[in-house]
Amino acid sequence: MSWDYVTSGIPDDLFDRVDDIPITKEEVRAIVLSKLRLKTNYSVIDVGCGSGSITVELCLMVKTGKVYAIDFNPKAIELTRQNLNKFGLEAELIPSIAQEILPVLPAVDAIIVGGTWGETEKIIELCVTKLKPGGRIVVDTILIETMYKAITTIKKQCLSDIEVTQILITRGKNVSTGTMLTARNPVLVISATKT
Amino acid sequence: MSWDYVTSGIPDDLFDRVDDIPITKEEVRAIVLSKLRLKTNYSVIDVGCGSGSITVELCLMVKTGKVYAIDFNPKAIELTRQNLNKFGLEAELIPSIAQEILPVLPAVDAIIVGGTWGETEKIIELCVTKLKPGGRIVVDTILIETMYKAITTIKKQCLSDIEVTQILITRGKNVSTGTMLTARNPVLVISATKT
Amino acid sequence: MSWDYVTSGIPDDLFDRVDDIPITKEEVRAIVLSKLRLKTNYSVIDVGCGSGSITVELCLMVKTGKVYAIDFNPKAIELTRQNLNKFGLEAELIPSIAQEILPVLPAVDAIIVGGTWGETEKIIELCVTKLKPGGRIVVDTILIETMYKAITTIKKQCLSDIEVTQILITRGKNVSTGTMLTARNPVLVISATKT
Amino acid sequence: MSWDYVTSGIPDDLFDRVDDIPITKEEVRAIVLSKLRLKTNYSVIDVGCGSGSITVELCLMVKTGKVYAIDFNPKAIELTRQNLNKFGLEAELIPSIAQEILPVLPAVDAIIVGGTWGETEKIIELCVTKLKPGGRIVVDTILIETMYKAITTIKKQCLSDIEVTQILITRGKNVSTGTMLTARNPVLVISATKT
Repeated sequence: MSWDYVTSGIPDDLFDRVDDIPITKEEVRAIVLSKLRLKTNYSVIDVGCGSGSITVELCLMVKTGKVYAIDFNPKAIELTRQNLNKFGLEAELIPSIAQEILPVLPAVDAIIVGGTWGETEKIIELCVTKLKPGGRIVVDTILIETMYKAITTIKKQCLSDIEVTQILITRGKNVSTGTMLTARNPVLVISATKT
Repeated sequence: MSWDYVTSGIPDDLFDRVDDIPITKEEVRAIVLSKLRLKTNYSVIDVGCGSGSITVELCLMVKTGKVYAIDFNPKAIELTRQNLNKFGLEAELIPSIAQEILPVLPAVDAIIVGGTWGETEKIIELCVTKLKPGGRIVVDTILIETMYKAITTIKKQCLSDIEVTQILITRGKNVSTGTMLTARNPVLVISATKT
Repeated sequence: MSWDYVTSGIPDDLFDRVDDIPITKEEVRAIVLSKLRLKTNYSVIDVGCGSGSITVELCLMVKTGKVYAIDFNPKAIELTRQNLNKFGLEAELIPSIAQEILPVLPAVDAIIVGGTWGETEKIIELCVTKLKPGGRIVVDTILIETMYKAITTIKKQCLSDIEVTQILITRGKNVSTGTMLTARNPVLVISATKT
Repeated sequence: MSWDYVTSGIPDDLFDRVDDIPITKEEVRAIVLSKLRLKTNYSVIDVGCGSGSITVELCLMVKTGKVYAIDFNPKAIELTRQNLNKFGLEAELIPSIAQEILPVLPAVDAIIVGGTWGETEKIIELCVTKLKPGGRIVVDTILIETMYKAITTIKKQCLSDIEVTQILITRGKNVSTGTMLTARNPVLVISATKT
């Protein structure tokens, strides 16, 4: 399979899935990619890659650039590898706790944080040290506690252009009498630029 | 000004604005572009271009391709021209009622309909005739009546992969005591593929 | 069991449930009751009573008044009876198609329409004929088609104070790392006063 | 003017308004009242009464009971008095900082906290000490920081039945071509019962 389009937001059902491994849904993914503001040849870190749907889209966007995908769950790393293979793409897959591996990674142009497992402050602080000046950090979360910690941590760093966006997607579903609106869980996206 | 990123969703405040001419906000724009599934060299029609924010992003995506931007309001056409100039881009600007000009345009790879002024059925039917097989149509609307008419019209055409998505974006705003969530009006996006 | 409070919005889990019989969730129910603007001794019709959660709250509000609960599904009528019994309440339960029974019911002070099974226009027209002057009609729906038909039908009747409200509730759910926001499907409520 | 209905959710435009004094909108108010679970004769504290719309509804619900309305802004107290007068109701109006007056108030059956001005933890802790066993506390907020602090503080107290609810209301607005959905800012409601 190949995704020949220049636009992001690959349909969710084109990705392989495994129970318990989360996926960033296509509309949220399109917005996350948009907030990352990517260029060809960029290097990017994907913290908490989960199913690898964002990893795949990052690879498609940065092409000759470099994508590092981190997840502490080996099953997530394996699923990400599988999805990269499916789309004929390559990334550096790192089965590790983010706090342990981030310090040894090179500086990058953009970082997406999709999961922090309660270590929000520490992971965001580490990520910011790994961002080149002008680089972008984007954090997406479904937890009120992580929203709060991400916002307060990001405000303390040398970051500008801080933006908080909650995304609520409802999808039409065909039922016998018409089109029912079915809600997806809201996602909060915090984005900022390193100064 | 130039937008050097490969990702869509240019910040709203980079566009020139004129009172009463609507703009598709950046997050909705990122999703609309995503649903259009574009390739370099595609030809695209933008029905109801308004401020031209989608026209600009279409030009950035299809590069050597061709973008037709239609609006019945000459002020919208003028503003679209101004925003294209700002980003150093070119599109074919057509100050016309969509129903009158669509029949004489060539077949294209994708069509975005951002406004129908009560002529939803007729405009969508015309758009579908202008789509190449495999081409995508995306309709975005803020009106319940247009949602209904777009859905029922699209279901009657030779279209597959019909999808209905409501997007509700809330933005964090800094106030003295914290981050207030401020809502933007929901947008409904209907998308489909010509069979 | 008894609900001794003067406020509406009984927690969902206090009602008996049966698979496939829908329930109006507590927050939406509180808003629906609010839009009905009830007084003690009012007579009210509940079209499409489903699980009977609204029927129960109507009985609590109108006390010595009269509540008619209609559903074409005998299982819904049975479940409504069970929930009324649970709270020690009584209503007139009518296992019938709404269009057939509405003409023979007396005029009432308020009508809630929770389901129309594709017969939106006819049922709303019939309901309006059954409303006393000054009476309230409230329609709640999860379908785009019913939204449209309810709005256009209500606009054609002798009704004032027409109001359209979409309700989107997300609930916090405890997970190991915090409070996850989980969305419920949006409900559209259309309300109006007979002139 | 009198509100003769037994249901809550008085239309917003029936209240007098003053610039800069916030009002809890009718649908959110209906849900807040619902979560408070009130009985006739209850005593209730309204912390941060603002325009007094909740104070008015509390008085209507508890009738012979007692309502204390606190606001540090004298203009809010004055506006609340004006709205109580408009509906022919009486409450104890207290122009004070909540933390200073709460300790000297008697224990009550229910407390609604509509504003905490950055003192979320302290105010909630004080409120819980003022609740009778079985009493209800409801906090409504529009700030991410207050959401977080309210949730974490409430979890540390002797409270059960803790519930987090985000309410997103969009209202239909008539425009020339149909019914436009216009969003209101989301409100987060945290509620709990004193054990």
